[in-house]
Amino acid sequence: MIVDKYREMLGAKSVIRELSEYATARGREIGYGNVFDYSLGNPSVPAPESFKKAVIRLLTECDPMDVHGYSPSLGIPSVKEKIAGSLNRRFGMDYTGDHIFMTSGAAGAIAHAVRLVAQPGDEVLTFAPFFPEYHPYVDLTGARLKVVPADTENFQINFERFGEMLTQKVMAVLINTPNNPSGTVYTKETLEKLAEIMSEKERQYGHEIYLISDEPYREILFAGVEEVYVSRFYANTISCYSYSKSLSIPGERIGYVAVNPACKDAVTLVNMCGQISRGIGHNCPTSLIQLAVAEVADETSDLSVYERNMNILYEELVKLGFTCVKPGGTFYIFPKALEEDAKIFCQKAKNYDLILVPGDTFGCPGYFRMAYCIDTEKVERSLPALRKFVETEYGQKNGAN
Amino acid sequence: MIVDKYREMLGAKSVIRELSEYATARGREIGYGNVFDYSLGNPSVPAPESFKKAVIRLLTECDPMDVHGYSPSLGIPSVKEKIAGSLNRRFGMDYTGDHIFMTSGAAGAIAHAVRLVAQPGDEVLTFAPFFPEYHPYVDLTGARLKVVPADTENFQINFERFGEMLTQKVMAVLINTPNNPSGTVYTKETLEKLAEIMSEKERQYGHEIYLISDEPYREILFAGVEEVYVSRFYANTISCYSYSKSLSIPGERIGYVAVNPACKDAVTLVNMCGQISRGIGHNCPTSLIQLAVAEVADETSDLSVYERNMNILYEELVKLGFTCVKPGGTFYIFPKALEEDAKIFCQKAKNYDLILVPGDTFGCPGYFRMAYCIDTEKVERSLPALRKFVETEYGQKNGAN
Repeated sequence: MIVDKYREMLGAKSVIRELSEYATARGREIGYGNVFDYSLGNPSVPAPESFKKAVIRLLTECDPMDVHGYSPSLGIPSVKEKIAGSLNRRFGMDYTGDHIFMTSGAAGAIAHAVRLVAQPGDEVLTFAPFFPEYHPYVDLTGARLKVVPADTENFQINFERFGEMLTQKVMAVLINTPNNPSGTVYTKETLEKLAEIMSEKERQYGHEIYLISDEPYREILFAGVEEVYVSRFYANTISCYSYSKSLSIPGERIGYVAVNPACKDAVTLVNMCGQISRGIGHNCPTSLIQLAVAEVADETSDLSVYERNMNILYEELVKLGFTCVKPGGTFYIFPKALEEDAKIFCQKAKNYDLILVPGDTFGCPGYFRMAYCIDTEKVERSLPALRKFVETEYGQKNGAN
Repeated sequence: MIVDKYREMLGAKSVIRELSEYATARGREIGYGNVFDYSLGNPSVPAPESFKKAVIRLLTECDPMDVHGYSPSLGIPSVKEKIAGSLNRRFGMDYTGDHIFMTSGAAGAIAHAVRLVAQPGDEVLTFAPFFPEYHPYVDLTGARLKVVPADTENFQINFERFGEMLTQKVMAVLINTPNNPSGTVYTKETLEKLAEIMSEKERQYGHEIYLISDEPYREILFAGVEEVYVSRFYANTISCYSYSKSLSIPGERIGYVAVNPACKDAVTLVNMCGQISRGIGHNCPTSLIQLAVAEVADETSDLSVYERNMNILYEELVKLGFTCVKPGGTFYIFPKALEEDAKIFCQKAKNYDLILVPGDTFGCPGYFRMAYCIDTEKVERSLPALRKFVETEYGQKNGAN
């Protein structure tokens, strides 16, 4: 008999995917160039040439038995060492290859990290607004994901509510900075305060509370924003990384878990990841792609388009009267909708061929997300539509005219 | 707090991996060429040139955004259609792309298939000798793997014991033909009888009993052995395939689930696989490798070395007095040890630099596995060591001298 828990998941369609499908269908009617599709967080710049060259070199110059052979379940040792070295140089850490576990992107990394430390009866806290796929990662362990309401002032952390919700049952706190969907980057002060509270509660409760740090947007940081490496603030940190955004290779499903060497049982946790993989039959990411990313571990695609797009949109949104926290990174912006129900707001926007995602999906009703990982030319062409939408639908209520 | 179930798995080291590590260490002492390492089932022939060319063509001629972009969680539609077409041509099936779910090799495929139909309280049956990783795939669903004792006459199916063990609790039967470790290929008669018994029990119990067919060795078939496609014999079949062996790319982690179109809820099962993937953060296999295997779906590496090696070993083993079923495929042979405890037998063999794996690991004590995916030259050089081992340790008991 079919297992119900998976069958039931089929019912709940992704809002983002439905909007993206609508955009594609609408594109067939009026030309996709005329649909201002801000729905999907798909990188819009190509992978760097060096990545392509690395793959071709591996295929043409190396023994195919080495390149295509089994990877150990924890990842290829030389790859893990290169990644540890790169993190140490960039962030002043002291990882070795033994602290790295290769995964299928950040999704695989987070799902492994949660399984390491959460089980039925436990709770995992995250902060609104948050990436909705955290739900399946946590739910299928049998633990419960609880969402701390947003600090809508600046999308840092609502520490008052966090303190209340950080009960004895909480085994892990899951953060995402730079943040999808708000674009906010946690400040040094936010991370210090977070670490202080968590350390205090660890002492009080007598058990570890792990910080799971989801960092796929780590390299997409805008001017004037301080780069902070989360794991430096808190010993029991499990960092989850993906090359999807930095190298524009989301389909290649490659990333890693990096356990802080000062974390309790650090190497045991990494080894346990291998056992989790065994049970799901995943084993390890593709060897060819592991070897290739190791060669370009310090590089990125040309990510400058995202900041350019952000500035254009931010300026226009503010001009139109939107309440909007200026993003410090990522390729998202998360303004407040011009009416209470962001779902209705986004529905109306479709009439202007603007595809926006209501914040309800991210645990933050009343806001909406724009993923501006599209060509700058298209962002510019979308501004008249945005103006017309706001003026027509909300002209009386805003100072935009 | 760390989740115990994964920590406890760390204790149980793989016998095969330990033997392989011993072989590597011994190789450092006497030269790896002098260690007759029959431990690991790692392909020993390179991937076909056409695979390499397909990858390079994708990288150099296609838009990197298409090649490296997100794959849908069920797999890339064009890839799924090509695979369905290839299976239909070769085996007279009527799959469409909707019946195919792309996975990380057969491991991923089996782990997904088991999760579709088994949960705590259920049982999954398999037949000794069997691949030991079936345990984590089944155990971590909460269901129980039960092993039907071997038919040691010919390593087909012990139907008497199967009939007894196929109780109301059994939701799936997991088979592997051509078989690791025995090398046996199930005959048409075996599959017909298996299907007949399962269909009868489905009617009796009033629920589906799914046949999960693990087929990574499907293309490694020896002369005179009839090719049979399991899914043709039983409607409720979920086929699990990997390109690891046919294309010699085990590190690239690529394979698929193919659900028989006549299977109950066939397309729902495929869609549910996508939900299972979501929960483990796996999402889908690497897009570059998906696209590449689709281009060479009907091809294989030059697999002829395996049959050559099998014939040399089989002839010598029989000459030395071993009881041995002649393999019909794979790159394994599974003779009876020359003393009751195969672990002691294999331990003694190490003194002759012969690395053999005791059958206990495969649920079949008293036998041992040789993985002859090594150069023919090395197989030939191993024969004097094999003779010396048998004559010295077991000379009195055998007619070998």
